Amino acid sequence: MMKDASVTENAEPRRGVLQYPPTEHGGNIYEIAGQLGVPQNTLIDFSASINPLGLSKKVKETIRKGMDGLVNYPDPDTTMLRRKIAEQHDIDPRTIVCGNGSSELIYLIPRALKPGQVLMPGPTFSEYERACKLSNELRVMSYELKEENNFRIITEEFISAINTLSFNSQLLTPDSKLIFLCNPNNPTGALLQREEILEIADAARKQGCYLVVDEAFIDFTPEESVIHDVKDNPYLIVLRSMTKFHALTGLRIGYAVLHRSRIGRVLEFKEPWTVNNLAQSAAVAALDDRDYSERTYGLIAREKRYIEKRLKKYGVKFFPSAANYYLLKVADAGELVVKLRNRGILVRDCSNFRGLNNSYVRIAVKSRKHNEMLMKELSESCAG
Amino acid sequence: MMKDASVTENAEPRRGVLQYPPTEHGGNIYEIAGQLGVPQNTLIDFSASINPLGLSKKVKETIRKGMDGLVNYPDPDTTMLRRKIAEQHDIDPRTIVCGNGSSELIYLIPRALKPGQVLMPGPTFSEYERACKLSNELRVMSYELKEENNFRIITEEFISAINTLSFNSQLLTPDSKLIFLCNPNNPTGALLQREEILEIADAARKQGCYLVVDEAFIDFTPEESVIHDVKDNPYLIVLRSMTKFHALTGLRIGYAVLHRSRIGRVLEFKEPWTVNNLAQSAAVAALDDRDYSERTYGLIAREKRYIEKRLKKYGVKFFPSAANYYLLKVADAGELVVKLRNRGILVRDCSNFRGLNNSYVRIAVKSRKHNEMLMKELSESCAG
Repeated sequence: MMKDASVTENAEPRRGVLQYPPTEHGGNIYEIAGQLGVPQNTLIDFSASINPLGLSKKVKETIRKGMDGLVNYPDPDTTMLRRKIAEQHDIDPRTIVCGNGSSELIYLIPRALKPGQVLMPGPTFSEYERACKLSNELRVMSYELKEENNFRIITEEFISAINTLSFNSQLLTPDSKLIFLCNPNNPTGALLQREEILEIADAARKQGCYLVVDEAFIDFTPEESVIHDVKDNPYLIVLRSMTKFHALTGLRIGYAVLHRSRIGRVLEFKEPWTVNNLAQSAAVAALDDRDYSERTYGLIAREKRYIEKRLKKYGVKFFPSAANYYLLKVADAGELVVKLRNRGILVRDCSNFRGLNNSYVRIAVKSRKHNEMLMKELSESCAG
Repeated sequence: MMKDASVTENAEPRRGVLQYPPTEHGGNIYEIAGQLGVPQNTLIDFSASINPLGLSKKVKETIRKGMDGLVNYPDPDTTMLRRKIAEQHDIDPRTIVCGNGSSELIYLIPRALKPGQVLMPGPTFSEYERACKLSNELRVMSYELKEENNFRIITEEFISAINTLSFNSQLLTPDSKLIFLCNPNNPTGALLQREEILEIADAARKQGCYLVVDEAFIDFTPEESVIHDVKDNPYLIVLRSMTKFHALTGLRIGYAVLHRSRIGRVLEFKEPWTVNNLAQSAAVAALDDRDYSERTYGLIAREKRYIEKRLKKYGVKFFPSAANYYLLKVADAGELVVKLRNRGILVRDCSNFRGLNNSYVRIAVKSRKHNEMLMKELSESCAG
């Protein structure tokens, strides 16, 4: 058992998705539009954090041109896309595995590496825990992120949790521990600096423990990525998503970067043809579109300044975020969500995140027009 | 151990996909175009069996219109699509699970049902065995399809194999046996009549053994489907694909139909957002396009008559097929594949199918123009 008071085992069974509809994430405009009886495109969705620029023109043009190729199977090796990703990051294409969104890879990695014990902070993206529990008989340990620290990991504490990770030696083979870290974290936006991640990676490696750093939102603060550090650490795995920054949300595309010595083990478990043709070609076009990236940086920085200023003015508590979303503390999340929903505005009720409760919602950073609408609503709902 | 001489255990480990490129299926035009140094669209691909009509105009129009919605997550419940599928087959939408191609479901089902022993005919689609072996510690038993029977299952023999399925009672819980049947079978095209499948389903049910009937190619002979029989048999599961008949190959879409009492168990293991937005909307449009289906029936029937006539004329041995492909017996598959490849024509070398060897290739039914080209080549290569 863990000695550290900040780490506890997530013992209670997590309810699986047992029937339709199983919504537990943001972004399900379909279900909500159905409930409200309105068209999906009339909803303003702050519950999923997607680049407000939408798909770039170049990406749309690529999709249009790619339609005739849909009669062919997707390239199972994603060769062109891996080449483009490798070129962008200056890494080896043979260390990349592409997925049907990074969600495929979140499930693939525990299935392939078969850890017996997993450590992750809480609150964090809930699919890590679900993926681990479905893939294996294992224990999931949760490191408690504290509100008084702005839900930020205290590196020394976390390393001490790694060092004391206990395990049942009968069940576990070497390399059977794994950590999931989301940086910046979802839903808090808290960012660890590259040096802090590397300190944690070093501690994990010494324990023969895999460290998966999910950088799904790091494109919004690119300098802190540890993607180049993978080649020197067989225990470090980096996940990237193209469904947020590049808005390829509906097409699904993500990738993992692993040490050369670990790629084979993951490919052994990979299902064939998971990355559709259009996702592959659209992702190549998106990575080539530098202008889109520059415009995104400008837009997000500008809108974050605007949102923070307004939230401060209205006295709405928010937490420092390096991502394109904010975790807000409110009086009653459920009540706020319903109130906004009735006006066609969706925000993410965070009460089903492990470690959070009915006092938190997450809002995306969108266009000025939409941000203004939300801020106006919040000024009326939360002021005081 | 099995007593029946026609059933053996697939004991030797199947090599996983350990490095790029892992091609072991047809349809990988990317790798071959790269090897030959030619553009992909100059290759004539008989190695994947896709409707030669390609995507219907209505489907393309739907994809074009759907691009703006790609900034949203896919509907995780695939509600509209399940409703359309249910309407087409006159079944309950709550008994349908959609997948990122039926390949997702081939992997999902053993993972969810956790069988300890699996029976399948050989030769058949190789992903069944890979999916089973990756999902669980289990034994895969192979029922040998014999060339003298045109690789057709002998129903009584197969039922006797089901009845003698042995298992290690220490490892297995009830309902821990599973059968994969592909109807019509891939790569042979052999079809079992609905009554035969129902006889097998009945025998399986009596043994508490799940029967997965993969009807990936049954749209080409629709009257033999057992999709309506699922509601009366908790052990019957039907898989359907929209990547063959509807040519949504690159977009990936398939579905499973299960008894109401079994849906929850499968959804518990399903990964989120696997079916992309465009696959969902394109599939709805495809199912609505009756004219496309009618034209396909006509085209495939006409081209199959043409191909059979030519093959007979040239003395090329082929096996009766209910699907849009033929298994051919040739002198040297490897040699023929290379010879055709050098002329830009791809056929499927079947030597890596369990139970086949270097004497078999599979060819798709394509347009008359392409079929003529292939027949001309075969008349020169195989005549005698």
